Amino acid sequence: MKAAIVSVGTELLFGQIVNTNAAEISSDLNRLGIDVLYHLTVGDNPDRLFDILETALARCDLIVTTGGLGPTQDDLTKETVAKVMGAPMSVHQEAMDHLMQYFSRLDRAMTENNLKQALLPEGASVFMNTQGTAPGFALEKNKKIIACLPGPPREMRAMFTHSLEPFLIKYGIGTIHYRILRTYGLGESAMETALIDLISSQTDPTIATYAGEGECYLRIASKAPSKEEADMRIDQVVELVMERIGEYVYSTDGRMLHEVVAGILMERGLTLSCAESCTGGLFASKLTSVPGISAVFDRGYVTYSNESKIQELGVRKETLDLYGAVSKETAREMAEGLYKRTGSDICISVTGIAGPGGGTPEKPVGMAFIGVQSKDRCTGKTYSFVKMKQARGTRTHINTILVKEILFQIYQCLKS
Amino acid sequence: MKAAIVSVGTELLFGQIVNTNAAEISSDLNRLGIDVLYHLTVGDNPDRLFDILETALARCDLIVTTGGLGPTQDDLTKETVAKVMGAPMSVHQEAMDHLMQYFSRLDRAMTENNLKQALLPEGASVFMNTQGTAPGFALEKNKKIIACLPGPPREMRAMFTHSLEPFLIKYGIGTIHYRILRTYGLGESAMETALIDLISSQTDPTIATYAGEGECYLRIASKAPSKEEADMRIDQVVELVMERIGEYVYSTDGRMLHEVVAGILMERGLTLSCAESCTGGLFASKLTSVPGISAVFDRGYVTYSNESKIQELGVRKETLDLYGAVSKETAREMAEGLYKRTGSDICISVTGIAGPGGGTPEKPVGMAFIGVQSKDRCTGKTYSFVKMKQARGTRTHINTILVKEILFQIYQCLKS
Repeated sequence: MKAAIVSVGTELLFGQIVNTNAAEISSDLNRLGIDVLYHLTVGDNPDRLFDILETALARCDLIVTTGGLGPTQDDLTKETVAKVMGAPMSVHQEAMDHLMQYFSRLDRAMTENNLKQALLPEGASVFMNTQGTAPGFALEKNKKIIACLPGPPREMRAMFTHSLEPFLIKYGIGTIHYRILRTYGLGESAMETALIDLISSQTDPTIATYAGEGECYLRIASKAPSKEEADMRIDQVVELVMERIGEYVYSTDGRMLHEVVAGILMERGLTLSCAESCTGGLFASKLTSVPGISAVFDRGYVTYSNESKIQELGVRKETLDLYGAVSKETAREMAEGLYKRTGSDICISVTGIAGPGGGTPEKPVGMAFIGVQSKDRCTGKTYSFVKMKQARGTRTHINTILVKEILFQIYQCLKS
Repeated sequence: MKAAIVSVGTELLFGQIVNTNAAEISSDLNRLGIDVLYHLTVGDNPDRLFDILETALARCDLIVTTGGLGPTQDDLTKETVAKVMGAPMSVHQEAMDHLMQYFSRLDRAMTENNLKQALLPEGASVFMNTQGTAPGFALEKNKKIIACLPGPPREMRAMFTHSLEPFLIKYGIGTIHYRILRTYGLGESAMETALIDLISSQTDPTIATYAGEGECYLRIASKAPSKEEADMRIDQVVELVMERIGEYVYSTDGRMLHEVVAGILMERGLTLSCAESCTGGLFASKLTSVPGISAVFDRGYVTYSNESKIQELGVRKETLDLYGAVSKETAREMAEGLYKRTGSDICISVTGIAGPGGGTPEKPVGMAFIGVQSKDRCTGKTYSFVKMKQARGTRTHINTILVKEILFQIYQCLKS
């Protein structure tokens, strides 16, 4: 099955937003064994949209559109798709009820233009929007399908997963089975070099490497006819990969580092507290994004000022004067103070220079110290260490990398 | 002048990378007064690329391609463009010299396939690559231009600025001026309803509305011949817009809410501390993502457990027992305790249910209480209030919305 992704929205053509939807949908369609041949973006212009849809329909079996489903007058995707497919529009009662409920639940008045959202092409399979108001749909004619999803990424994602994917699977599209192995501390080219002969010689499963933010992962995919057969084939390849780069792999089921760490903490009932300076709460917010974490996450401090490091964590003024806030010594005292104060099983601290200002030749932007103080529940012994990390990039990127590094340090503590 | 951006690369169609180039080039072309009508992405497939280029050439005056200029065998953009434009390929001496120099400077052997990069369509204006090896070019025929830039964003960006932009300006293209107004608390459909007559009647400047995550914004754009004239026209429209929806507008210069709030705090030297429960540090990390904030951000607490609320903030056990951790009373005591402890000019607290678990009919997922305790520097008077907010969506989305709401509460305090 060949597909095109058609993105509708003048804001894309103005360059105000980046088209992440097209990449996400591509990745998902590929996973379902569908080849994506084109990404096509047009503005809120019905003539050009009609033109693009007609051309794409001649070359592909499936078109997935995003955007232009909303209530305002420049939202014209539905009407144009209906025209291309030769289907009249009519009020869809379920969609209308859903809209009414949405507004009454929010206790907000529904403006007239919202009613437009309940108008849908006749004969369409309607997809309810669990994250917003505009419904989506899929319309089939002569073995060609056009599926329309909303533009906001959150709404698009939910509708893809809950509605479009099951719809496509009903069409008997051979599913691809795959597994994601995530690594930390290994570059993409180094990973490829370590696995190049496997990558080149494998036909099923295939192995592909990807670079994420501060880490790399690989995808092992099989088109085997059954899940059992695919799992068996994938297992064999995972074993070969682990022999070579196992020390870098922290997840063989696609879970991200913060999910893996949170999972181990919750499983073992180990409590954690943190004291952050440069990362400003990013570590705490990442870890607490995992549902259920409240059972083990005790508390966090964002000790930005020197006073707060002294008052909250008992860092000594002399240490700050002598070594500076960004130092091994301060990181150590932060973690120790946190441990004394909270008694959490694992206490971590971080202090560094996120930039763009504040760097010096000795302590450049991106330099940070991560302190860990922890108690072994079995032996009752405490251990502590400080690790230095130097990240590069913008303020936000540096903090993202530091949070990954903290998580990996905790992961290694938990594994050992 | 009408333009299309053609991106070449199978990795885009796999969804392995997001097409940031198309957004960046669009934004730059718009700035130069060129209307971008299409973004078109194809894989490394010469037939489909030929097809796309030919179609785009019939509809546009300018095509900018990215990608497929490199040395490997799947890089076919140049050859295909030459075919579409009916130009033969030949060795370009300057490009060849540049390549030789590049490799000798790096002290690296130049592999045979690199020579391919010095082959360029005859009659093209050649753009040297200051950041890599592959040269770009622009080729004109019958008043239509195809310009080819490399795919790596850093190389593309440098070549756009240093070569393509001066090339296009030579063609006497005008510029677009625009301003972004950001709002909070107003839905996109309500915004359009409030401004519909302005939107419909304006030809220059034009007004367009957009929905972001938890907020909406509008873009007022003018093609006036000079910046002064454009500014004057935009000013007039901004005034009309402000009369109608001014209470929702927090930024008339495109800055985001956390940047605006951080800016006011830094400008006035007002200190801030925060105590977060459900948002788990997300508020602190958002605010501290702004460079320079360390001058006014004192400290933050992530008080997840009841014990930490009692120990760190002095919330009374009776309050927690009687009203629960997610209550107006707890939010108020969190903010009060924070204020007593830190003496920061503005102290904010938040406690809520981020989900997916933990909701009850009385306190559903998404319900949160935001406490503010603040001191007026002039009068010395303190004031405090608690605001209830109910957000919907996933755990991460709920927290994102809550952080926006906290920021808007602070913004309103600072404005009053």
